[in-house]
Amino acid sequence: MYDRLKEHVCKANLALVEHGLVVLTWGNVSQIDRQAGVVAIKPSGVDYDQLTADKIVIVDLSGRQIDGRLRPSSDTPTHLELYRGFPKIGGICHTHSRNATIWAQACKDIPCLGTTHADHFYGPIPCTPPMTPDQITGDYELNTGKVIVSRFVGLDPMHMPAVLVANHGPFTWGKDAFDAVMNAIVLEEVAAMALGVEQLSPCRPPIDQALLDRHFFRKHGSSAYYGQR
Amino acid sequence: MYDRLKEHVCKANLALVEHGLVVLTWGNVSQIDRQAGVVAIKPSGVDYDQLTADKIVIVDLSGRQIDGRLRPSSDTPTHLELYRGFPKIGGICHTHSRNATIWAQACKDIPCLGTTHADHFYGPIPCTPPMTPDQITGDYELNTGKVIVSRFVGLDPMHMPAVLVANHGPFTWGKDAFDAVMNAIVLEEVAAMALGVEQLSPCRPPIDQALLDRHFFRKHGSSAYYGQR
Amino acid sequence: MYDRLKEHVCKANLALVEHGLVVLTWGNVSQIDRQAGVVAIKPSGVDYDQLTADKIVIVDLSGRQIDGRLRPSSDTPTHLELYRGFPKIGGICHTHSRNATIWAQACKDIPCLGTTHADHFYGPIPCTPPMTPDQITGDYELNTGKVIVSRFVGLDPMHMPAVLVANHGPFTWGKDAFDAVMNAIVLEEVAAMALGVEQLSPCRPPIDQALLDRHFFRKHGSSAYYGQR
Amino acid sequence: MYDRLKEHVCKANLALVEHGLVVLTWGNVSQIDRQAGVVAIKPSGVDYDQLTADKIVIVDLSGRQIDGRLRPSSDTPTHLELYRGFPKIGGICHTHSRNATIWAQACKDIPCLGTTHADHFYGPIPCTPPMTPDQITGDYELNTGKVIVSRFVGLDPMHMPAVLVANHGPFTWGKDAFDAVMNAIVLEEVAAMALGVEQLSPCRPPIDQALLDRHFFRKHGSSAYYGQR
Repeated sequence: MYDRLKEHVCKANLALVEHGLVVLTWGNVSQIDRQAGVVAIKPSGVDYDQLTADKIVIVDLSGRQIDGRLRPSSDTPTHLELYRGFPKIGGICHTHSRNATIWAQACKDIPCLGTTHADHFYGPIPCTPPMTPDQITGDYELNTGKVIVSRFVGLDPMHMPAVLVANHGPFTWGKDAFDAVMNAIVLEEVAAMALGVEQLSPCRPPIDQALLDRHFFRKHGSSAYYGQR
Repeated sequence: MYDRLKEHVCKANLALVEHGLVVLTWGNVSQIDRQAGVVAIKPSGVDYDQLTADKIVIVDLSGRQIDGRLRPSSDTPTHLELYRGFPKIGGICHTHSRNATIWAQACKDIPCLGTTHADHFYGPIPCTPPMTPDQITGDYELNTGKVIVSRFVGLDPMHMPAVLVANHGPFTWGKDAFDAVMNAIVLEEVAAMALGVEQLSPCRPPIDQALLDRHFFRKHGSSAYYGQR
Repeated sequence: MYDRLKEHVCKANLALVEHGLVVLTWGNVSQIDRQAGVVAIKPSGVDYDQLTADKIVIVDLSGRQIDGRLRPSSDTPTHLELYRGFPKIGGICHTHSRNATIWAQACKDIPCLGTTHADHFYGPIPCTPPMTPDQITGDYELNTGKVIVSRFVGLDPMHMPAVLVANHGPFTWGKDAFDAVMNAIVLEEVAAMALGVEQLSPCRPPIDQALLDRHFFRKHGSSAYYGQR
Repeated sequence: MYDRLKEHVCKANLALVEHGLVVLTWGNVSQIDRQAGVVAIKPSGVDYDQLTADKIVIVDLSGRQIDGRLRPSSDTPTHLELYRGFPKIGGICHTHSRNATIWAQACKDIPCLGTTHADHFYGPIPCTPPMTPDQITGDYELNTGKVIVSRFVGLDPMHMPAVLVANHGPFTWGKDAFDAVMNAIVLEEVAAMALGVEQLSPCRPPIDQALLDRHFFRKHGSSAYYGQR
């Protein structure tokens, strides 16, 4: 019944490996079918070279398991909270990719220092505040989602498809699972570049607003003119 | 009619991937046929693993599309301005390769700190001034080319086949598309080395003029003695 | 007689290469059979592409060679001291992986700066004090083991399955050889991330105890809920 | 006549590529047959994927070409000067490997900060003084060799099989071509580690003399006990 969705999510998870964003079993990708009200997500702690579409788990938006024999990713409550909080997103990706995680561990937003960043993220990539002991000892994975959603008050998640969870690592999203993975790839590259710039020219101001607008809207929105239409 | 040119440009674009200079669809290579007055360039936003010679687009120097069903790279006006401004160059390459982009985002010239640099680039690799809001909101890609050409007043583009566009990334060029790609490979390596030197020994003076001359002219010009003749 | 043990240890040694933790012949992995009182370990200075299960050496806990034609790793006395000092561990791995070795050469503990670290190591990864000239000129490899065991007074080696030997490099361990290798992979990644954080935000405080507890015990101990059970 | 020597030198050159020490055509390896008084070396500017044993060039110690249709590496006079100045060495390797070149461009010796270094190099890896304009405009490649040999007054090249030529890059050597390549591999790794240590703990003192002695002589000389004998 959910075969196509599972196949899609399986491939998106494997794309993480292909692009070098994964160590061991870290990272997970999900996709939502908003009409059916279900989310397909990677099972917890399964090796990527053992991952096949039939192992993908289906849960509903309240977290009830609908399909699949394995336990879903332990980060499932975070994904679900994001799907509930950001109604336009269709896929979510979580990694511990090295350079994005460095920024998350330093508890710093990634400033927008160039057009590589501006092509995909409209402004600085936000880092959440550190979670409180109460949030951590409580329903931790759910609270991780809540902290992200709170951080996005005043931000459009479709214009800023990434967040750094402080002391943890990045989550990215997009119109579907592959789009979320693509944003994870770009985020990792942008994070590496910003780290190098920080060394060469510490605390640089971000790029001009005009350049940010030009590049972001060259690729996004109704006046986009990048790619084939 | 333009089959050989397209084949050549397709291979040069794929060489970017092979040498690790490409993330996703970023980067593009073109080559000019000065006699025919046409430029072959990568189509916009096409995946490299889908790229075949018949997808390469042919435009004339004014930007009119002569051949090909796909839209040319959105950076085409920059390439054309460089072909008009630098009459001796035959190929152009644009990437967002990590280390060269770090220097571009830091808005700094790459100083000539060693013979690896001096073998290919005669002096510091220039970074353009940041573009003004007017240049950005106007004909942006054309203006990018104009900013580069202005930066080269007093510089010989055949002796300095690379530039960093501030807050953006590198363009390289050469006698043909492959030569431009080769210069992009060297630029990325030289940028990585200079970043490391900056950490070990900040604000080091460049190498001696005698060493720069020796290495550059060992490989370039009438008294070159490197390689097979 | 020890065929399965040798096969297992051979594969674990080759996994080091696969995960990019090895240069030339550096690194070695062993596993103990506590009931039989024997340890299987890589032979000294053998190329990994020549390594087969029949070349793995079997020694007893006093270092007497039981099986195998080749000489065991020169680090064997260190492994044996760790098996004697840490009665619960089943496998040991020693590498010179780049980032972990950088921290060892800097003679610094790796602070716990994020959940990637907390998922596997319960607190800062300890660095030993530098060895004294007497320890070095004496029974060096044995003394290396003794220095590690001394450093762990008050620490549970099953909660902290890694150490940095000052001016040398990392040793990791676990329930068997593969678990030790897995910890070496995580250690290398964690060391690289901490190096980047050190650049962005020097001398950062470690993560909150609540976050460390949450992540470590999410994966370890009786209340673990990560993975499939 | 020189078939075996050529085959050996060809393979050693290709090993450079395999170990990631080469960009484009940079780097060259040679080996001497002291009895025959001839040196086999890579031809100048030939692509590594076109390199076959029959393209290896044979010259005598005065630089006269004995065999081969192609021109020898432009660095041949440097190699010959080293073979004349260091009578015990049998092979030489020159690269522009990234991290070793960073130290060379910073004009700094690589301090001995750990056992990875001490296992192969007995003390700090020396950097030459920058060459003078006279040395550069004169017989440059020969003078490069002379500057290296001068730097080794008081040093045993068999205990220190590497040098950094200031503003240029590393040369390594050993008992034959493969040994020289192995030292280039180790040098690159040691240079990367020292760069990281320099970031974490600037201007650290070198390791204790006892530890340097222990590790170097564990692998070298009559009392070595590493590997199989």
